[in-house]
Amino acid sequence: MSDFAAACRAHFPGARPDDAFVAASLAIGRRYGFTADNTIACVGLCRDELSRELRARIQGAWGEAFNFSGLAGMLFVGRTGFMAAHAHAPISGGRERYVYFAMPHIAIDGAGTVGACARTGRPGPSSACGALVAFLAELRGSRVRLTTDPLDLEQTLLQQRLMEVVPHDHRPDLVEITRAARRIIADDLERMIKLTLDPEQADCLAFTGIQIHGPDGGYVEPGPSWAVIDGARRPIDPGAFEAAISPGAGA
Amino acid sequence: MSDFAAACRAHFPGARPDDAFVAASLAIGRRYGFTADNTIACVGLCRDELSRELRARIQGAWGEAFNFSGLAGMLFVGRTGFMAAHAHAPISGGRERYVYFAMPHIAIDGAGTVGACARTGRPGPSSACGALVAFLAELRGSRVRLTTDPLDLEQTLLQQRLMEVVPHDHRPDLVEITRAARRIIADDLERMIKLTLDPEQADCLAFTGIQIHGPDGGYVEPGPSWAVIDGARRPIDPGAFEAAISPGAGA
Repeated sequence: MSDFAAACRAHFPGARPDDAFVAASLAIGRRYGFTADNTIACVGLCRDELSRELRARIQGAWGEAFNFSGLAGMLFVGRTGFMAAHAHAPISGGRERYVYFAMPHIAIDGAGTVGACARTGRPGPSSACGALVAFLAELRGSRVRLTTDPLDLEQTLLQQRLMEVVPHDHRPDLVEITRAARRIIADDLERMIKLTLDPEQADCLAFTGIQIHGPDGGYVEPGPSWAVIDGARRPIDPGAFEAAISPGAGA
Repeated sequence: MSDFAAACRAHFPGARPDDAFVAASLAIGRRYGFTADNTIACVGLCRDELSRELRARIQGAWGEAFNFSGLAGMLFVGRTGFMAAHAHAPISGGRERYVYFAMPHIAIDGAGTVGACARTGRPGPSSACGALVAFLAELRGSRVRLTTDPLDLEQTLLQQRLMEVVPHDHRPDLVEITRAARRIIADDLERMIKLTLDPEQADCLAFTGIQIHGPDGGYVEPGPSWAVIDGARRPIDPGAFEAAISPGAGA
């Protein structure tokens, strides 16, 4: 096993190749009646250009996606953004269908170093997620900027959200803070769906997780995911991803 | 001339096909020493899935891009986002190079109706930019939400910015408010470049404009654009776009 694979397995035991994750999302979607033709995708990943590969795979499977991205994958898009995306959805059988993908990201390099990656044309190591690394650096220095800064809006809002969930006198590492970001993003997505989805006319699927950049490709560890069908929230079992992509599953 | 072409020419006389605009950006870039290999692209368009085609064209020409998008193309990404993008740039000849694209968007349909477009799988007309249309609707009703709403962050911030530039007792139309958004985005881009670009180690190109969705493809009307080379700001003459894509210009 490569150093990357060992580190990825240790920290993100549920990670799988991003193309398998996207194929699983399609297979799971089909069970609920969601297809590329009758559904609009909304994709919230980090703004980092590394995130684009997963976005492209999702769009390859689900079609052109409304762009929900923010620093660290945070859903700053707000109610008008959600409502605009909904207003662009296909209407099939009298109903609209939305599929959301929302997750933070992290890199692991070939030596198994968490947070490290290479950038095209740039010597030396780089890091991802830069916004979460920046937060941890401020935390180490006990100088976390928490006042909303109009010139650094997304980072200061991100830091407010993270600081609310970091226990005082505890120094999280990058994996821990990435998991915290995933939980915040899932909470925000759940809240925004409750606020904007009209169960009389629309159903949705919500996929959260963690995007992982490896030296030879991308991975996703699926997180809590759910469907809202006719107003009823149905959790998607983590095993559904495994089943959907196992040989013979027809994914 | 089609009804679309007539309306597009009337409202956006400088519009040209989006592929020609992107080709011109490459040709202009070459004059300043910017190429896909030595430059990172940062692309701020509206979150609307219609905007993706231009994003894809820019990425096809300039490589994977940091995602600066926000509702109506507003640059909410902030200082940390700009700095993160810079930290991902190639280093060539000891210098970093950034190319920014930042613009709002508007649709014009086949009948020449400004703001109207079709959406895949959805009957009836749709509109773009939805965020600007929503602002105009609130303005018509004299009920513009200007208090920052954490659950509708980008729209309320957008409305604050727009309301600052709309003369009182004047009702702008969609073209006028789209031009206002373009000016705000250009001002924000200029300010963020001054705040984050280190002229000792980096140069940049900044392209603003308006993205136009037609019934048969996309267009861009170039707006004020400039380079910052060795700390000196050099405006890019609007004629440079014409020259770069005219026959024989080698673009």
